[in-house]
Amino acid sequence: MVNLMSGDSFHPPVRTLMGPGPSDMNPRVLAAMGRPIIGHLDPAFVGMMDQMKVLLQYAFQTENELTLPVSAPGSAGMETCFVNLVEPGDKVVVCINGVFGQRMKENVERCGATPVVVEDDWGQPVDAQKLDSTLAAHPDARLVAFVHAETSTGACSDVKTLTQVAHAHDCLVIVDSVTGLGGSELRVDDWGVDAIYSGTQKCLSCTPGLSPVSFGPRAVERIQSRKHKVQSWFLDLNLIMGYWGSGGGKRAYHHTAPINALYALHEALVLLHEEGLENAWARHRHHHEALKAGLEAMGLALLVEEPHRLPQLNAVKVPEGVDEAAVRTRLLQRYGLEIGAGLGPLAGRIWRIGLMGFACNAKNVRLCLHALESVLTEMGAPVERGAALPAAERIYGVTA
Amino acid sequence: MVNLMSGDSFHPPVRTLMGPGPSDMNPRVLAAMGRPIIGHLDPAFVGMMDQMKVLLQYAFQTENELTLPVSAPGSAGMETCFVNLVEPGDKVVVCINGVFGQRMKENVERCGATPVVVEDDWGQPVDAQKLDSTLAAHPDARLVAFVHAETSTGACSDVKTLTQVAHAHDCLVIVDSVTGLGGSELRVDDWGVDAIYSGTQKCLSCTPGLSPVSFGPRAVERIQSRKHKVQSWFLDLNLIMGYWGSGGGKRAYHHTAPINALYALHEALVLLHEEGLENAWARHRHHHEALKAGLEAMGLALLVEEPHRLPQLNAVKVPEGVDEAAVRTRLLQRYGLEIGAGLGPLAGRIWRIGLMGFACNAKNVRLCLHALESVLTEMGAPVERGAALPAAERIYGVTA
Repeated sequence: MVNLMSGDSFHPPVRTLMGPGPSDMNPRVLAAMGRPIIGHLDPAFVGMMDQMKVLLQYAFQTENELTLPVSAPGSAGMETCFVNLVEPGDKVVVCINGVFGQRMKENVERCGATPVVVEDDWGQPVDAQKLDSTLAAHPDARLVAFVHAETSTGACSDVKTLTQVAHAHDCLVIVDSVTGLGGSELRVDDWGVDAIYSGTQKCLSCTPGLSPVSFGPRAVERIQSRKHKVQSWFLDLNLIMGYWGSGGGKRAYHHTAPINALYALHEALVLLHEEGLENAWARHRHHHEALKAGLEAMGLALLVEEPHRLPQLNAVKVPEGVDEAAVRTRLLQRYGLEIGAGLGPLAGRIWRIGLMGFACNAKNVRLCLHALESVLTEMGAPVERGAALPAAERIYGVTA
Repeated sequence: MVNLMSGDSFHPPVRTLMGPGPSDMNPRVLAAMGRPIIGHLDPAFVGMMDQMKVLLQYAFQTENELTLPVSAPGSAGMETCFVNLVEPGDKVVVCINGVFGQRMKENVERCGATPVVVEDDWGQPVDAQKLDSTLAAHPDARLVAFVHAETSTGACSDVKTLTQVAHAHDCLVIVDSVTGLGGSELRVDDWGVDAIYSGTQKCLSCTPGLSPVSFGPRAVERIQSRKHKVQSWFLDLNLIMGYWGSGGGKRAYHHTAPINALYALHEALVLLHEEGLENAWARHRHHHEALKAGLEAMGLALLVEEPHRLPQLNAVKVPEGVDEAAVRTRLLQRYGLEIGAGLGPLAGRIWRIGLMGFACNAKNVRLCLHALESVLTEMGAPVERGAALPAAERIYGVTA
C-alpha cells in the first residue's frame, strides 16, 4: 500500500550514474531546467529555439536545416525516422548487432514494410561486406538502417563506410547514434548520413525525454514526396517543421514543446560547445583508457575487441561464478554507484559501465575501480587486488 | 545569424502565463525538476513511480490499474489512446467542436480506420442527441471520441451523458481532458470513462512533455484482444505496461523515462492532493467568477454560454476593430503577461485567458483585468474604465 500523506515530496538519493544512461547532469544543466517556464510561442523562447538548432548542428557536424530535438525520448526519435522515411511495401535493410537494431526491425514492420536483416554477433560491429552482398541480393531496397554506437554491447560501427556501401546501392541510411552523439567521432555531413537520431541522457548529460534528429536533403526530399500520410500525427515531420521553423516563416502550433527540458538541452549544448566537440571526444577516450587499464589490471576482460570499443560504454565480462545482480545491488547500496546489466543474450554475462558526458571523469573512474574491486573481492571473485587504481593512475600520469 | 559565444546560457524573462497552457509552475515543482537525476530502474525511482500511479488515480478519480504518464506531450497521449484502441477498418465516431476534435479525426484516419463526424459549432459543447442519432445510423461503430474541455474554445462537454450514450450503443469512449484534469469536475470511474488522456502543463501546472492516461477494464480487454500489432512501438501499451508494472512483477526496460519531468509531475500531484481535488475545482470556479465579473464590467463578452464554460479557459470576444495580436504583444512587453490567441475559425476573433492550476489566483485575475483595461483603453477600444477591478473585488468580498 502506497502511503500518500501530505508532504510526501520525492527526494532522490545521491547517486553516481555509470550505467548505459542516464548519466549525471552538470549542475548548470539542472539549474537551467528549474528556471521559470515561459510560453512555447514566446518570442524569447523562439529565439532560444533558433540558437538550439545551431548548437545541434554543431554537435552533429551538419548544416542540415532539418535538425531539431523531437519532444520525446530516443525511441521516439527512432520512430520519427522510420515513420517519415518508410512507406508501406518498402524493403528496408536492417543491420542487427544488439538490442537497438532489433528495435529498428520492429519499427520497419510496424510501418508495413519488409525488413531484410544483416546479422552480426552481439559485441561485433556491423560488417560492411555482409551489408554490401545483402544489398546486391536485394536491389529493390530503398533504405539501410544501422546503429553507430550499440548501447547494449558497447560496439562502435563504421558509419562512414556503411553509408558509402548503402549509397553505392542507391539506398538512404538511418543511423542510431543515441549513445554516440557527443562521445565519439560523428560527422553527419562529411560522412553523408541521410537521417540520424540521438538521445539527450547519454553523452550530452541532459535529462531524458528529448531526441535530437537531423535529416539531409535527400531524406527531406523523400519525406516530401511520400505517397502515404505519415502514420503518426505526433511525429509527422511535415507538421513539426512548421513549429521548428525549418520552412522559414511563422511558427505554427503543433504540440506544446517540453519547455524546461529544452532549457536543459540548450545548456548542455552550450557546455559541449564551450568544451569543443573534439575535446569532448578525446576526454571520453582518455578516461576510457584509464578505466580499461584498471579493469584489465584487476583481471577483468572487455566484451568488444579493441578497434571497435566505444569509450563511453564499456561492456565488461562477468567473471565465472559471480552473481552479477548481487554485485550491482551492493555497488548501489554501499557506494551509490549505478552500473548497468546486460540485455538479451548478454543478460547475466556482462556489466555495462558508462563514461558519458559529465559523468566521464577521473573521480568516477577511481570510484568505480575501487568499488568494483572491493565488492568482487568480498564476494570471492578471482580478482587481482590493489592493481586497478595504480594502473588507472598511470594513464593519468600519477605514478606515486 | 545566431551568436554562439561561449557562456550564452538561456535566461528566460519573467512572465505570468494566462494563456491556454503552459501555466506558471509552483516553485516546489520547479525545485523538484532540478533535483539530481537517478536511474530509471533505480529502486528509489520505482518507489516514486508506484506513488505516482496512486496520485494519478486520485486526480482521475479512478481505480484503473492502467494509469500512468506517457513520456511525451498531450498529443502523444491522444495518439496512445487511438493507436492502442483503434484497428484498421474500424469505424470511430468523432465529435468535433474545436481543434482537438479535428486532431482526433486525423488520428483515426492515420490508424487506417473510418471516422464518422458529429459536428458542433466552435464554442458549443458536444450535442448528446446528435451523437445518439449518429450512433443509431452507424451500428457498426466501435468507439466514440470526444473532448471534455476544448482548449481551443473553452467549452465543457458533458462527459457523463456522452459516455452513457456511447455505452448504450455498445461503444467504448476515448476522452480528451488535457485541459480538464485538476481544473474541472472529472470522475473517470463514476462516469464509466473507458480511456482518457490529459496533459501536465494545464491545471496541474507542471512542465509540458508528459501525458497522464488511464484505461478501464473494457479498454484493456480490447487492447489485449487486438488482431493487429499497435502501429507505434513507442506508444504500444502492451510494452509500456511492462515498465510501469501494471501487470505486476519485474519492471522491464522499454524506453528511458523523462526522469526529472516525472519528479516534477510527482510534486505537482502531491500539491493537488494536499489541496484536495474538489477544493481545486472550487478554486478554479471562484477565480473564474471574479475574472468574468471584471471582463463583463469592462464590456467584454465571453464566447461560451454560461452553463458550458470552463473556468480554467476563458474565451473572450475581441471587440470590433481591435487588433488582437497588437493587444497581446503589448500585454507581453509591458506586463510580462501572456494570454492566448484564437485558433482556426476563431483566429483574430477571441483571446484565450487561462486560469490554470498554480496560475489560477486573485493576483493574476487582478493583473489581467488591469492590464487588459489599460491596453484596450490606450488603443481606443470601447471599454468601460474603472469598473473591472471593483467588479472582481466584489466576488472576492472586498467592497472598499
